[in-house]
Amino acid sequence: MNKKALSILMRARMKPNDRTSLSLSPIPLTNATSQMQQQNSRQNGSPGDGNSAPNDSGNSEREFKRVRASMHSAISMSKTEVLDDVLNNFSEGYLNLSHENRRKLLLVLAREYDLNRSQVRELIKQYLGLEHPADKAQVSGSEDEGLFSSFYRIERNLRHALQPVYEVLFERLNTHPGGLRTLSILREDILSILAEENIASLRALDSYLMEKFITWLSPAALELHQITWDDPASLLEKIVAYEAVHPISNLLDLKRRLGIGRRCFGYLHPAIPGEPLIFIEVALLKDIAQTIQEVLWDNPPIPESEATCALFYSISSTQPGLAGINLGKFLIKRVVTQVKREMPHISTFATLSPIPGFISWLLSKLASQRLLAEGDNLSQPQAEGSSSTFYENILKPEEEEALMSLPKDIAAGENGMDVMFNLLTSTSYKWIHSPELLSALKSPLMRLCARYLLQEKKRGKALDSVANFHLQNGAMVERINWMADRSDKGLSQSGGIMVNYVYRLDHIEEYAQSYFNNGEIHTSSDLHRWVDATDTA
Amino acid sequence: MNKKALSILMRARMKPNDRTSLSLSPIPLTNATSQMQQQNSRQNGSPGDGNSAPNDSGNSEREFKRVRASMHSAISMSKTEVLDDVLNNFSEGYLNLSHENRRKLLLVLAREYDLNRSQVRELIKQYLGLEHPADKAQVSGSEDEGLFSSFYRIERNLRHALQPVYEVLFERLNTHPGGLRTLSILREDILSILAEENIASLRALDSYLMEKFITWLSPAALELHQITWDDPASLLEKIVAYEAVHPISNLLDLKRRLGIGRRCFGYLHPAIPGEPLIFIEVALLKDIAQTIQEVLWDNPPIPESEATCALFYSISSTQPGLAGINLGKFLIKRVVTQVKREMPHISTFATLSPIPGFISWLLSKLASQRLLAEGDNLSQPQAEGSSSTFYENILKPEEEEALMSLPKDIAAGENGMDVMFNLLTSTSYKWIHSPELLSALKSPLMRLCARYLLQEKKRGKALDSVANFHLQNGAMVERINWMADRSDKGLSQSGGIMVNYVYRLDHIEEYAQSYFNNGEIHTSSDLHRWVDATDTA
Repeated sequence: MNKKALSILMRARMKPNDRTSLSLSPIPLTNATSQMQQQNSRQNGSPGDGNSAPNDSGNSEREFKRVRASMHSAISMSKTEVLDDVLNNFSEGYLNLSHENRRKLLLVLAREYDLNRSQVRELIKQYLGLEHPADKAQVSGSEDEGLFSSFYRIERNLRHALQPVYEVLFERLNTHPGGLRTLSILREDILSILAEENIASLRALDSYLMEKFITWLSPAALELHQITWDDPASLLEKIVAYEAVHPISNLLDLKRRLGIGRRCFGYLHPAIPGEPLIFIEVALLKDIAQTIQEVLWDNPPIPESEATCALFYSISSTQPGLAGINLGKFLIKRVVTQVKREMPHISTFATLSPIPGFISWLLSKLASQRLLAEGDNLSQPQAEGSSSTFYENILKPEEEEALMSLPKDIAAGENGMDVMFNLLTSTSYKWIHSPELLSALKSPLMRLCARYLLQEKKRGKALDSVANFHLQNGAMVERINWMADRSDKGLSQSGGIMVNYVYRLDHIEEYAQSYFNNGEIHTSSDLHRWVDATDTA
Repeated sequence: MNKKALSILMRARMKPNDRTSLSLSPIPLTNATSQMQQQNSRQNGSPGDGNSAPNDSGNSEREFKRVRASMHSAISMSKTEVLDDVLNNFSEGYLNLSHENRRKLLLVLAREYDLNRSQVRELIKQYLGLEHPADKAQVSGSEDEGLFSSFYRIERNLRHALQPVYEVLFERLNTHPGGLRTLSILREDILSILAEENIASLRALDSYLMEKFITWLSPAALELHQITWDDPASLLEKIVAYEAVHPISNLLDLKRRLGIGRRCFGYLHPAIPGEPLIFIEVALLKDIAQTIQEVLWDNPPIPESEATCALFYSISSTQPGLAGINLGKFLIKRVVTQVKREMPHISTFATLSPIPGFISWLLSKLASQRLLAEGDNLSQPQAEGSSSTFYENILKPEEEEALMSLPKDIAAGENGMDVMFNLLTSTSYKWIHSPELLSALKSPLMRLCARYLLQEKKRGKALDSVANFHLQNGAMVERINWMADRSDKGLSQSGGIMVNYVYRLDHIEEYAQSYFNNGEIHTSSDLHRWVDATDTA
């Protein structure tokens, strides 16, 4: 590895610790990616374009028109014309546009390059005129296929007419070297616009583009690559930048994650060379780890021949633009196969995962109960205590008691939930440094976490995005672990708790199916311990 | 390379010399591929299936039903069910079916898994009910996108409803390891059925599948791989089997084509590992070669640093099922870029190509003139000689004279064209061993070959498939070479003549475009020498 490469890697240390949760959720990793993009556009952009920096509003209208023109050419040129240059111009131009101009351009694309509705209507008229012979032939299953010919023809034409005009841009970019990456950035922008405003035409374009991605990115076309310290620095740099679950803090950290007792696998697509679309980090252990500390910092790793458990402790997608395309499922399946083949002595495949939605769910629960309680206080005195039908003390009596009996100087509040809310929102998580507070919080937090994982659902599926991901892949919820991740992120998102999902090879398909069909979540008795019958009521 | 691998390679020597012409034409390479397939199915098929050999008619109905059932499952199962097994069963079962059963199954697929027409009609009714708001909003370009939402929704549903049910099978196979290969074999079978009978439903299925292939096989997703002697024998074996232009006769021949002064590049797709979809063979030379002998057998190759010309002397597709998908164009483009980067001293990019349709065109021309002449003889005596308006002496007076003055024992015939026909159809091409015959034939054959290349067209494009291929890629016709390929195949297809197409890097796009727009063929003065003005009339 050369000096420049090393220095790039060293810079990793300075990366802010501001990643969003598991990037399989549809939240664009805006910081990491825009940083990369700027690097790219700086590398690729012609030096003379210095004036066209994204935020230079003086030139932005001219820039916009230029990119719009190249977009139009890219769509309307005949197949044999000099498309490569046009597509390069469009890609480079787009990356240099300001956020506002990208938004404008995407709206132009969605609205003005939509489908040709008069052609659709014309074909529909032709189609309806054909109705009779089809009915007849279809019933008889007759060999007289002549009747069908015109059917097939018009159906095909109608199918084509129903493809929006922007289809051409998508297909041409997909064919073009580097085009897939442009499309991925384009969709990242679309998703971030749609997160702010609901624009029907842009939503239609997004769903069309996503279908395209699913077709293009067939897992059979992806290469499973084991990432090692021998890989180019330019690739390792991406791992550092995109690791979304447990940020890589320095060079040593990265090296350990690729060393003995560890594995890292990525899916590479030939059109996006040198950068896995998604990667997974694996630790080879004796038992299923309970804390991330054991995995990331405890020394030394055990000899690989003694390992019986492959622990997936991180899975990160590098392309926010590919949100919604479940490559992780296929990646886990292939990695399991690969590891089992290499190391038949490994019999347990588990994860150590964050519960990224837990604390925000809990805080909103606590906050709404506070509001209800306040409302009750104001509108008293109909009945005594908390009488609202919506009010629910989510704490058990003994938990309430433990929280209320804490010294007021370190844990104030009108009731147990109030104390809990105050502690969880306290600056710098002071509660984790006090054995007293920890002990009072453990029982309610673990119990509510189990409830959150197993019982809080949205459209019949687990509310937690990571839980939903592993459950739909066919995993079961094995164990929740107290104080398993004491990092700021671990505390703020998951209350320091981590969960082990286990992939039981003989049951993966069965579990996936019962989860898919009726939201059934398979769990161990450990989890049931936390969620008792009264809770379920 | 181990012993087994070597012995596989050695067997190459025994391969019959029966390849079809340049496999970029849509003729399935039935021999080479079915051989491979049988090998594959023997390797993959379970040993217990011994009874289900393709031609065992006793079991064939049962086999057919089994494969049909697995096909139905592959299409109708929900996403999370155990699809892998089902898709494997279908693929293996299909490969074991007899030709007749494959045909039956494909017809079932085309007819019974077609689209749901009543659903299409229902959606069309909903769509037509919407007509008004769209017209209004479209004109005003209004921000009121609410009106459009239902449009987008129904258009999307209609687009999906217009996708035949077999789409599911295609997409699922594409996602499945090895599925792309199954699909390629499936399409090969479809094409061979369609070559015999025109079945509308199957043709519709084929055109749908081809569109899918074009999307899946984006050139940006293909890996350019330089094939060398260090590649696995299993890959080199494929090169031997699929070389369609100049069959590889033995191990030494193959080794030379991968050695000094030579290059071989293939396009690999991750889903079809170890087998290029298409490959091209290149010779590094001082000048554009005139004969294939110079390229394949003349010793020794010049030092690479002295080369100024990269000669493409063979391009072969390995997947008859991918006929109609022009990967060759992208391959040539990428190879040119690669060679130019590696060896900037190379300035000429040319081909040495067969003219595979020349002799069959010429013979049918001669035969029809003979028939017309006979007809005239029978219906005499309206006027003297050959008076039919359709009759054309394609020979010039001096050529006629030269042919008629040949000794009758070696060249008999009523007139020049008759003599020519008899010579060209003589057993074992005796004319090439006689200087006298060669000299009489050279002038008319070269002139008619030039005419065939430049002036014989079908729908405005060159009649010759190889000519059309290079011209649409942006090449020009540089030179035709007498006695350039004396192999049986070279003589029977091209009359021993070969042509150099040249890719002028500065003009590739321009030439491709003028050929595309108005069939214009760029040529050198050498070619014009053969085709003079009187010929054009």
